[in-house]
Amino acid sequence: MSGGDAPDILVRARRLKLVLTDCDGVLTDGGVYYSDQGEQLKRFSIRDGMGVERLRILAGIETGIITGELSQSVGKRAEKLGMVECHLGSKDKAATIKCILASRGLNGDEVAYVGDDVNDLPAFAAVGLAACPADAMEEVKAAAHLVLAQRGGQGAFREFAEIILKKVAFAQAD
Amino acid sequence: MSGGDAPDILVRARRLKLVLTDCDGVLTDGGVYYSDQGEQLKRFSIRDGMGVERLRILAGIETGIITGELSQSVGKRAEKLGMVECHLGSKDKAATIKCILASRGLNGDEVAYVGDDVNDLPAFAAVGLAACPADAMEEVKAAAHLVLAQRGGQGAFREFAEIILKKVAFAQAD
Amino acid sequence: MSGGDAPDILVRARRLKLVLTDCDGVLTDGGVYYSDQGEQLKRFSIRDGMGVERLRILAGIETGIITGELSQSVGKRAEKLGMVECHLGSKDKAATIKCILASRGLNGDEVAYVGDDVNDLPAFAAVGLAACPADAMEEVKAAAHLVLAQRGGQGAFREFAEIILKKVAFAQAD
Amino acid sequence: MSGGDAPDILVRARRLKLVLTDCDGVLTDGGVYYSDQGEQLKRFSIRDGMGVERLRILAGIETGIITGELSQSVGKRAEKLGMVECHLGSKDKAATIKCILASRGLNGDEVAYVGDDVNDLPAFAAVGLAACPADAMEEVKAAAHLVLAQRGGQGAFREFAEIILKKVAFAQAD
Repeated sequence: MSGGDAPDILVRARRLKLVLTDCDGVLTDGGVYYSDQGEQLKRFSIRDGMGVERLRILAGIETGIITGELSQSVGKRAEKLGMVECHLGSKDKAATIKCILASRGLNGDEVAYVGDDVNDLPAFAAVGLAACPADAMEEVKAAAHLVLAQRGGQGAFREFAEIILKKVAFAQAD
Repeated sequence: MSGGDAPDILVRARRLKLVLTDCDGVLTDGGVYYSDQGEQLKRFSIRDGMGVERLRILAGIETGIITGELSQSVGKRAEKLGMVECHLGSKDKAATIKCILASRGLNGDEVAYVGDDVNDLPAFAAVGLAACPADAMEEVKAAAHLVLAQRGGQGAFREFAEIILKKVAFAQAD
Repeated sequence: MSGGDAPDILVRARRLKLVLTDCDGVLTDGGVYYSDQGEQLKRFSIRDGMGVERLRILAGIETGIITGELSQSVGKRAEKLGMVECHLGSKDKAATIKCILASRGLNGDEVAYVGDDVNDLPAFAAVGLAACPADAMEEVKAAAHLVLAQRGGQGAFREFAEIILKKVAFAQAD
Repeated sequence: MSGGDAPDILVRARRLKLVLTDCDGVLTDGGVYYSDQGEQLKRFSIRDGMGVERLRILAGIETGIITGELSQSVGKRAEKLGMVECHLGSKDKAATIKCILASRGLNGDEVAYVGDDVNDLPAFAAVGLAACPADAMEEVKAAAHLVLAQRGGQGAFREFAEIILKKVAFAQAD
């Protein structure tokens, strides 16, 4: 179900008001840095950060993170980027998305989700546009509407943001 | 002695109750980060962590680490993942495996081991299924039952876990 | 507008007295490492550092950083390398460049700038020679006089420094 | 002047009693990680560490580091690996090598050196066998007896150690 320039993607992108994303493997390359004290660091991308900013400023689309991990570093990154949702320790991402839809008064087709691993598949079913990085697990690539050309932590989220921005711009120019 | 889809691998995988692995070069890309105070960080992969979880939940297969290094960061990672064995500073990995077999009442052919360097070769001889990452040393590739397509720290362990899970599922479907 | 050996680049390089650069994505690969306390680390390249040193010693060309981020790590790196300008938190890089030109009594064509993302485009218009790493955003590559062969954080700045040094040497040998 | 299997390399390798190496770009990939407090981390390779150990145990060849940088992390890594020389802040590597030769009663042709950048070239002239990683600067590749297949920080030093060990073994088998 991939294909970035499909007319279907255009329709799906035009509806978006919120872009949610997994953290590890999407905003990062899946690496976690451990010291003697346990998990210390995750590596994010400045370019993805500009994608968050451009979605908000140019298209009024907000962003958020849903992750199964409990890493405060993720919360710090979300705060820095001005994201409006950040859910750590989610063991059921579809349920988390339903809570977000209810609290924000959104429909599923107004939300996109980016994920890379099998625990992201239920989230794909709950949103209108599902995308994954180039290096996602095979089952995830098969289920996504859109397989991005960039890898996780290497600009995949930014690429998704720019695709959305182009679709929105095209829609506005209609 | 490589070849992932060989019937031999199927037989070997069906017997497994425990998967042991080296740390540096398998769970990491071999990098160690030093500060003025000495070794500080190792980089692990979230995807490998999900492989540990899936082996346990889907197939009842436990996991553990045997490393020649004395890095507490490894213990922290093993603890986070709920591994059942973690041996640091092992200078004779075959001997360590024998102790584990004795204490758990397992035979060698119920155990798999993943390693990447020449000090892992004795461990290969002590287990029923020996695997290595794509970027292992040449002698190690030559001795492994299975040379994985992924590199150390880049999903090699997860790939191995998924291969085992597929073999086990296939066996159960028989 | 790329093309490293164009005679145009020679003319532009001969005039240079100051080389300014963006930080994230040029001096780094765009990665930012977060802990529970927020942003902790950026990764720089030793080779780029030698480029800064060689520009100063061999050609009398000074260097500086202009970044939209507010990371003290960048100031520390600039200080270590003996750069003469370091502007953090710049939201209008063209304006920052104009201030630098005024305070140093330089014309725009005596200054080069290296950037990788869309917020660097106004800076390109304010200088005599604009370059970008191989992995810059497409709009930035299209606007640069020179697209480098190396990626950000992987020697792109050093490559630019060596190109300038060769042009200057060639000019002096005339 | 490259060519790993040349008979010349065999003769040069047989004489070795000490292998010296640059740090950044050889034992590391050239990356330096900065925080608000300045330089914090360098990334080394476990595999290179095993190369140091194998040179010492299998061939009685000692090792050491000469670097122009003043990073205590390098000293910590040298200490961990049991290296016998570690010179930080060397601004004239050929002079440092001459001091080492004098204090250890060695001739230049009993010493090898691995470097990656132009400030390593004088060191190349002072030793019997000069090598560089695959991603060394072009001038350095041109001057080395041996251009390794691996990149700095990605196993280049280990590759060099194994080449020496094979040459020594071959010599002993004569």
